[in-house]
Amino acid sequence: MDRDALRLAAACADDARRIARGAFRSVVAVERKADATPVTAVDREIERRLRARIADARPEDGILGEEHGAEGTSRRRVWVVDPIDGTKAFITGSPLFGTLIALVDDGVPALGIVEMPALRERFVGVDGAATMNGRPCRVRPCPRLADASFYSPGPETLAVAGLDHALGDAVALRRYGGDCYAYCQLALGWVDLVVESGMAPYDFLALVPVVTGAGGTITDWHGAPLSLQSDGNVIAAGSPEVHAEALALIARHTGA
Amino acid sequence: MDRDALRLAAACADDARRIARGAFRSVVAVERKADATPVTAVDREIERRLRARIADARPEDGILGEEHGAEGTSRRRVWVVDPIDGTKAFITGSPLFGTLIALVDDGVPALGIVEMPALRERFVGVDGAATMNGRPCRVRPCPRLADASFYSPGPETLAVAGLDHALGDAVALRRYGGDCYAYCQLALGWVDLVVESGMAPYDFLALVPVVTGAGGTITDWHGAPLSLQSDGNVIAAGSPEVHAEALALIARHTGA
Repeated sequence: MDRDALRLAAACADDARRIARGAFRSVVAVERKADATPVTAVDREIERRLRARIADARPEDGILGEEHGAEGTSRRRVWVVDPIDGTKAFITGSPLFGTLIALVDDGVPALGIVEMPALRERFVGVDGAATMNGRPCRVRPCPRLADASFYSPGPETLAVAGLDHALGDAVALRRYGGDCYAYCQLALGWVDLVVESGMAPYDFLALVPVVTGAGGTITDWHGAPLSLQSDGNVIAAGSPEVHAEALALIARHTGA
Repeated sequence: MDRDALRLAAACADDARRIARGAFRSVVAVERKADATPVTAVDREIERRLRARIADARPEDGILGEEHGAEGTSRRRVWVVDPIDGTKAFITGSPLFGTLIALVDDGVPALGIVEMPALRERFVGVDGAATMNGRPCRVRPCPRLADASFYSPGPETLAVAGLDHALGDAVALRRYGGDCYAYCQLALGWVDLVVESGMAPYDFLALVPVVTGAGGTITDWHGAPLSLQSDGNVIAAGSPEVHAEALALIARHTGA
């Protein structure tokens, strides 16, 4: 990855940290979007700031953001931004919200940042490696799904009825919640499996270089690489064995 | 509260922070207790340290802890300790675990500390006030259950089938998880309702002075004050209106 792109991404993460920390646990009006999910002026302010910075530095690149839409997404390089992943955490005073910044190069997520403002933790995935605050991240071995620690957002959130329970019954430990941070826990080697549905590209593209840079696997539910065109069903695993076993379990449930 | 007891509780919280921070995200063997819940050597080490400190400073007081049992719990003053509330968070690398320290005086939880080692946040409830790192905590107004932000541990965790869904349908926003920290978010004025089942005295007694000191209400599902003898069904609300509405909804579901 060229150093200019890395510097730009880090400057975006610095902006997001400053704005989000300033607004965390201060009074912020919550609106509902058309899909009934919450959004705040802070989400919009962070995305506006990042889009302006990116457009200024790299006018030739495209940008896709959660709150302000898509521009030039057919270009070779596309920045993909989620200003606050975990808005429900943010507006309930939980520190487990993050800003997601990805750079997609020729269809491949080549750079990913998960910036956790309240925790002062930054996860960067690039050039086949992942770091947290500059220190290397590494997934842990996990030979069997039965030994895995598993996160999903909640019991009714997976696209196929009964799948969340089936996965929960197959693992050693299950937890709900976490949003982007569950993937960071996986990259750090403390979680073995995360499964989600209904994600948008700005929810998952930044996670790809972090998880794969830490030695893990993150794909759609067919085992295919994630891209701007993915269907939003995502599975991340620390070990190839857990990825394969969970994919097979998902296939049995989806009838694929 | 006498200053000696306050100093002792703070020294216990300091110990817990030091031990937990030293062990967080380092390799810790996980065992399963008879009830299949996980426990680590860190849980045991923190509790041993706190019990030794309390027994040394106040040999006349009783102690109840999650991992090492009860001693002298019929005495006038009883210390109640949960060394790691949120062991599943702790062993999966999530910072949302805490140490709970309560002092029960004549049956009443008179002092409560929620120490969050990884977050470097300490919540103290005593003498009718609550603080976070020394700054006052205050619940927020919430006139109706329909406006409330609601936390519960997970969909199947409440003692009565369907209750979690009914509460989730009645509120504006619902989130799973959080363990003790959900009550801290409530004391800070960012969450309006927390409902749980199957709690032990060491899970909830420290929360009582924090929630009530911040101006909230925390009771059992009949609206009765919490004590060493409570049945483990707990409801905490920031506003009296949400407490009353949620209690009524619970009563309809429990047939009480």
